[in-house]
Amino acid sequence: MTTDWLKDLTTILSDGALREVGDTYLTEPRGMWRGSAAAVVAPSDTEEVARVIRFAASRGIPVVPWSGGTGLVGGQTMPDAMPILLSTERMNRIREVYPSENVLVAEAGCILTDVHGAAADADRLFPLSLASEGTARIGGLLATNAGGVQVLRYGNARDLVLGIEAVLPSGEILRGLRRLRKDNTGYDLRNLLIGAEGTLGVITAAALRLFPRPAHEGTAVLVVESPAKALDLLGRALKLGGVTAFELMAGQGMQFLQETGVPVRLPFPEAPEWSVLIDLGLGPEDDPIERLERLFVEGHETGLVSDGVIASSEAQRRDLWAVRETIPEANKRIGAIASNDISLPLSAVPDFIDGCGARLRQAADLRINCFGHLGDGNLHYNLFPAEGRSRADYTDRVAELREIVAHEVAARDGSFSAEHGVGRLKVAELERYGDPAKMQAMRAIKAALDPAGIMNPGAVLRAPSR
Amino acid sequence: MTTDWLKDLTTILSDGALREVGDTYLTEPRGMWRGSAAAVVAPSDTEEVARVIRFAASRGIPVVPWSGGTGLVGGQTMPDAMPILLSTERMNRIREVYPSENVLVAEAGCILTDVHGAAADADRLFPLSLASEGTARIGGLLATNAGGVQVLRYGNARDLVLGIEAVLPSGEILRGLRRLRKDNTGYDLRNLLIGAEGTLGVITAAALRLFPRPAHEGTAVLVVESPAKALDLLGRALKLGGVTAFELMAGQGMQFLQETGVPVRLPFPEAPEWSVLIDLGLGPEDDPIERLERLFVEGHETGLVSDGVIASSEAQRRDLWAVRETIPEANKRIGAIASNDISLPLSAVPDFIDGCGARLRQAADLRINCFGHLGDGNLHYNLFPAEGRSRADYTDRVAELREIVAHEVAARDGSFSAEHGVGRLKVAELERYGDPAKMQAMRAIKAALDPAGIMNPGAVLRAPSR
Repeated sequence: MTTDWLKDLTTILSDGALREVGDTYLTEPRGMWRGSAAAVVAPSDTEEVARVIRFAASRGIPVVPWSGGTGLVGGQTMPDAMPILLSTERMNRIREVYPSENVLVAEAGCILTDVHGAAADADRLFPLSLASEGTARIGGLLATNAGGVQVLRYGNARDLVLGIEAVLPSGEILRGLRRLRKDNTGYDLRNLLIGAEGTLGVITAAALRLFPRPAHEGTAVLVVESPAKALDLLGRALKLGGVTAFELMAGQGMQFLQETGVPVRLPFPEAPEWSVLIDLGLGPEDDPIERLERLFVEGHETGLVSDGVIASSEAQRRDLWAVRETIPEANKRIGAIASNDISLPLSAVPDFIDGCGARLRQAADLRINCFGHLGDGNLHYNLFPAEGRSRADYTDRVAELREIVAHEVAARDGSFSAEHGVGRLKVAELERYGDPAKMQAMRAIKAALDPAGIMNPGAVLRAPSR
Repeated sequence: MTTDWLKDLTTILSDGALREVGDTYLTEPRGMWRGSAAAVVAPSDTEEVARVIRFAASRGIPVVPWSGGTGLVGGQTMPDAMPILLSTERMNRIREVYPSENVLVAEAGCILTDVHGAAADADRLFPLSLASEGTARIGGLLATNAGGVQVLRYGNARDLVLGIEAVLPSGEILRGLRRLRKDNTGYDLRNLLIGAEGTLGVITAAALRLFPRPAHEGTAVLVVESPAKALDLLGRALKLGGVTAFELMAGQGMQFLQETGVPVRLPFPEAPEWSVLIDLGLGPEDDPIERLERLFVEGHETGLVSDGVIASSEAQRRDLWAVRETIPEANKRIGAIASNDISLPLSAVPDFIDGCGARLRQAADLRINCFGHLGDGNLHYNLFPAEGRSRADYTDRVAELREIVAHEVAARDGSFSAEHGVGRLKVAELERYGDPAKMQAMRAIKAALDPAGIMNPGAVLRAPSR
């Protein structure tokens, strides 16, 4: 693959835009691929992004947008090719905050916690919240339609965006940074680019929705007998109102925390088989502890809840959340055979957990840690070696075990990728389980907007062979 | 234009699918166009829609999807051509209600009030609510991304949809009727079809989001000095929480109600220059009257609110809402010179009302009725003859007056179509004010998905001359 265009590229770049092609840009969190790149370019503004894209389009050079690098499906990593890696890291200005509109305009390179901070400075909340928020950047979070722990209340990344600015594969700038709650003037390109994982263009800035900060917050972990009872409890909680997060935790996860010695204060001396973490965000007139107590009593009286802890201080709230948030670290230390980020119609969740668990345990001696955003029907359903065994013992079984999960999800109209996206990891799964009409329309749109096929080739859709 | 394909068409239709080409299908609410049609076809199921579309695609026959016929921009009416008018009226089944998931699956032909009813039967709320709800059907409501009075709380039609089934211009069925809150598996075709006004396919069914019904509701009309003060009050109301609607009403509207004798109980003996209708929907533990009183007292103490009425009964709530909801009827009786459905960044609303009003009054002796969904920055900004004059007196001024409004909206980054869509009425405005990169991408997508150009040609995008 020739890269003799590199010298020409440098002539169109601003000072400091050409970065060293270093490890940071070529590795990804799970170490499944190592990428390559002819150049890493960090434009200083949207016009420069457009120049780079036009340059690439005119010569048919692949461009891989690189945001925080935290993606888990290889969307940011192109192996076996010499693309331009386009990093948004220098475009990290909060362009404007409009407190009276509950809107903030951020460039793509803004780190999520910085957006949280800018919102908080204006006494507002930007609710997108996930484990990688100290590293993940707005552009990548939108390109992958990120989810996280507050989706139940505030929606996915997509739902938090009023307008975007982007550079299309032609190098043209889509100037759609509108701050309108209603705008029915043509096709919804905003939502087409959001979730397209950089294959239809590069998002360079976004007008984001802010919310009033809850005046009072409260958290509880309640013990339930089964996922079915957890779902019933969710229905009751939603009726009471103010639910921000409703997270399911399997006993296996707490056992992993004990087993691996991750420093965290567990809420119960024995890990309950199933528990839910409930978070409330309420207005100035409401008392979250009172409401959680009411939910506990209701749950207890109706046989849904057998035990529970309601945080009585901010420190206790943090402790309860820490349990949920350190489960991934424990998982990492145990070492998963296979990780799944799946979603299901809510009412299918209990049957899936029963049915899929039974099939997997029939197929192999293993441990399952099932946890996640029950309120969204989104489970992180991860398979681990049986006690005393290691991942390596399962190497030749991984494909088969993955297949069982994929099958059980599809049989219940679920999704094999709830919040992580398709990237390069799940292209084959999309081809297999994606609706044929949808796949054909996606390919037609890709070809129409990116005829040269330069934008993140091989992500989401298999790159056409030339 | 030859229609000798009609006989062939009948051979692929089910019994009862061929309807009489009657007035209902060829007229539209504002009487600006009269459509024509070679045939009106009402398929009984999605497969039949697909057969009709394949038939049309193979012969290059235009297809105009016809839903409730309530659209205000001519999207459902194709003059000077002999299309197949495809009515969804026979596809009006609620396919399934999933109360525990807060999901309802409705076919495109379901009338909105029937969906409300089915949701209520399951003790749930489907919050899409607008004046034409007794006639408008789900397919059209989604195709136009309808808005209405509860957008502030629950979002536009787009935000109420989890999945859609649709027939694409190729005649293929997009089977996307998923009931998932999170699903990141490829491009967002759902939102592309929603709001595309039937130009990219026909939505045949949708999985819709339901919500818990508020346990308590409350309504107030508060008098404010200006739109700026109304906005400040909105900020305070949002902090208190539970706001479902926040509607601005100009004194002009109430005067029109008095002038035209529309039977309605006005809340104040003299029409206040500006007032807002505030609607709350709260949980079982909250008291809406208390909360509205608190807002009134706060507003009064901070100089935002000078007077007000808080409904103390359901009958009074209905009376207050009736004021807001009969304004369009009064408008109709007065007879508008020009109607505008615009949106603005929230903080630009007061300046727009001042600035645009001043320019219009400079240009002509007229009356302005400005009302609508202030919480969404969405104003219905309608121009009327001065007292004692008639619409006819303004015939040669309409274009100029429209132009002033369009200019003042665009100058403040607003939208010339907030919730009504583009249809055929606003194609030229979209060409003029639409972002060039967006327009080009829209045309590319249209050509990619509908190469024969059969789906609702001339709506949203000007039909290419052949």
